[in-house]
Amino acid sequence: MEISVPTILIDKDIVLKNIKNMAEKARRHNIVFRPHFKTHQSVEVGEWFRDFGVECITVSSVNMAKCFADAGWKDITISFPVNVLEIDEINTLAKRVKLNLLVNNRDSIKFLQKHIETHTEVWIKVDVGYHRAGLPWDRSDEIIKIAKEIESSKKLKFAGILVHSGNSYKSKNNSEILEVHKEASERIATLKEQLIQEGFDLVKVSIGDTPTASIADDFEGADELRPGNFVFYDLKQLQIGSCTEEDIAIRVACPVVSKNEENLELIIYGGAIHFSKDITLDEKGRYIFGYLIEEKDGKWGSIVKESYVSSLSQEHGIVKTDGEHFEKINVGDVILIIPVHSCLTVNIMKKFRLTTGEEFDALCS
Amino acid sequence: MEISVPTILIDKDIVLKNIKNMAEKARRHNIVFRPHFKTHQSVEVGEWFRDFGVECITVSSVNMAKCFADAGWKDITISFPVNVLEIDEINTLAKRVKLNLLVNNRDSIKFLQKHIETHTEVWIKVDVGYHRAGLPWDRSDEIIKIAKEIESSKKLKFAGILVHSGNSYKSKNNSEILEVHKEASERIATLKEQLIQEGFDLVKVSIGDTPTASIADDFEGADELRPGNFVFYDLKQLQIGSCTEEDIAIRVACPVVSKNEENLELIIYGGAIHFSKDITLDEKGRYIFGYLIEEKDGKWGSIVKESYVSSLSQEHGIVKTDGEHFEKINVGDVILIIPVHSCLTVNIMKKFRLTTGEEFDALCS
Repeated sequence: MEISVPTILIDKDIVLKNIKNMAEKARRHNIVFRPHFKTHQSVEVGEWFRDFGVECITVSSVNMAKCFADAGWKDITISFPVNVLEIDEINTLAKRVKLNLLVNNRDSIKFLQKHIETHTEVWIKVDVGYHRAGLPWDRSDEIIKIAKEIESSKKLKFAGILVHSGNSYKSKNNSEILEVHKEASERIATLKEQLIQEGFDLVKVSIGDTPTASIADDFEGADELRPGNFVFYDLKQLQIGSCTEEDIAIRVACPVVSKNEENLELIIYGGAIHFSKDITLDEKGRYIFGYLIEEKDGKWGSIVKESYVSSLSQEHGIVKTDGEHFEKINVGDVILIIPVHSCLTVNIMKKFRLTTGEEFDALCS
Repeated sequence: MEISVPTILIDKDIVLKNIKNMAEKARRHNIVFRPHFKTHQSVEVGEWFRDFGVECITVSSVNMAKCFADAGWKDITISFPVNVLEIDEINTLAKRVKLNLLVNNRDSIKFLQKHIETHTEVWIKVDVGYHRAGLPWDRSDEIIKIAKEIESSKKLKFAGILVHSGNSYKSKNNSEILEVHKEASERIATLKEQLIQEGFDLVKVSIGDTPTASIADDFEGADELRPGNFVFYDLKQLQIGSCTEEDIAIRVACPVVSKNEENLELIIYGGAIHFSKDITLDEKGRYIFGYLIEEKDGKWGSIVKESYVSSLSQEHGIVKTDGEHFEKINVGDVILIIPVHSCLTVNIMKKFRLTTGEEFDALCS
């Protein structure tokens, strides 16, 4: 099947290998594998997880939960602070599946106490270093108060501590990722001990960023693992050492619409509305939106670090090339680019094609 | 109608005023108003232009052209270098509507000479300062060669010079926008004169970025005006002086899911998948993704410059507030944010709601 417009390509074999590796790792450590489905947002890719024994999933919105519930998933954690304005949808969904919610403040708990209609487990979102949406791990007084509030409600049950060590994305290499993981694990252990002392004897721990899930091999104290990005990986994960080039299952195929001899630039049909605008600093100090990938006999080859996407506007991309690839590539060719952030690229394109030709929607957003 | 998830709100009265102003400006200067529809991507908003006499439109992809052709538009310029891989769709479309194409290289023209099936006008994309996808204005030798190539084909007709002075977006104020416009106009005039000397007596000139279209009042030498963003405007346009606060027709309504007392931050349901990741530097030297807007009696109020979106991840947004607004706003409230770049925000959300309640799709992408 010919490609004539910007198209996400996914290598299913690589995806299956990535899922298998992560599922086996979770099994080896005797923790629940609850993958985050926000990276692929696809009912079909979701199905691929079932062969690896996956029964519990993570999503980032009520609508995404509904979408995967419709696809037959029965145990779903919405890993985003509960949005009380969606209480009607939450109540409807909680009657159909085991829905697990996340809170980080007492106002939301008070609201749930009044309005939740079904027995529901609630996780407390704890910040162990990322400083985004969790309650700071050392504010154990507040965390204990919230846990007690949860338990005081007949319909709510305190599930445990949920963390997302998103600060791992700022790592430069594996040892920095492991540092983040170690610090997070220690902070979680301290907090968990405090909760146990307060009488909470069944405090589960849910962890989940792709970098630490990929690199760490000590999950002492964790009960479940929620990585999402690992299913496709991307350039950012490669840069920080979460994966190798061979683990990256995603490319964006883009038509070349013109060439600029003077600057050795290719103008591609492929812009911010295809890649999103996530940018990364590469090892040569350049801010880039992706690298060119060589193709050999129709197969994906290696990254060409001298040929990179230097700018993106709405539908234009500029690829700065080395001379060699400038000569090889012509107007009307389709080139492959490795994107910076697969989650946002899939989210913005809303569909992708397997290298074997099938097209899938990614509409569970 | 209640808002419970991130929602783009559009004020139709402001949009109609913006369209009216631009249409009247074009009429006053006796130039064709050919608005770019990539900002709204909506069949319904497209209809609003008809009352102002608009019959010709601009789009950025073959698919967008098809979408608006289906909606009854008969004269459509695809303002993106022709993607030869879509020749079949181009030929089909060119039989239904007056389709105008854009080229910036001889390879594409040679391809069109062989494969185009219907009489089609072709514009040459010329770079007068933006340095993205046009042929440099001072490479008149090459431009003339391409114009001759176009004319040598029985089916193709050379329409003229099309420019996009996207460098106007780097302006800091109106006088810098006018500088960009003046320089562009002079370069266009020089090139046009050279083309006339070569015997091209009917060289039209198409210009079109929103900043110069909004601010300039001298369009000597231009035959048509193609702004797009002006329909909604946004924070970026406000910053450079293309519009006033009252001209901005777009807000993003976002639920507040928690509050962080220590940092006076609000966590909102509203992230990169709602706003896109276009960022801007504000006058206080902060990189921001948008400002909070006050609401008074259910009506849009002023920008609150001390309360701004400081970071966005996939579905989370962090709003750094001043103390006053931190106190006023509660979990479960919906706040209004003015986005940095309306085109990308609409593109990523794919739908919006009028302040009067109707919901429209923005699916012509």
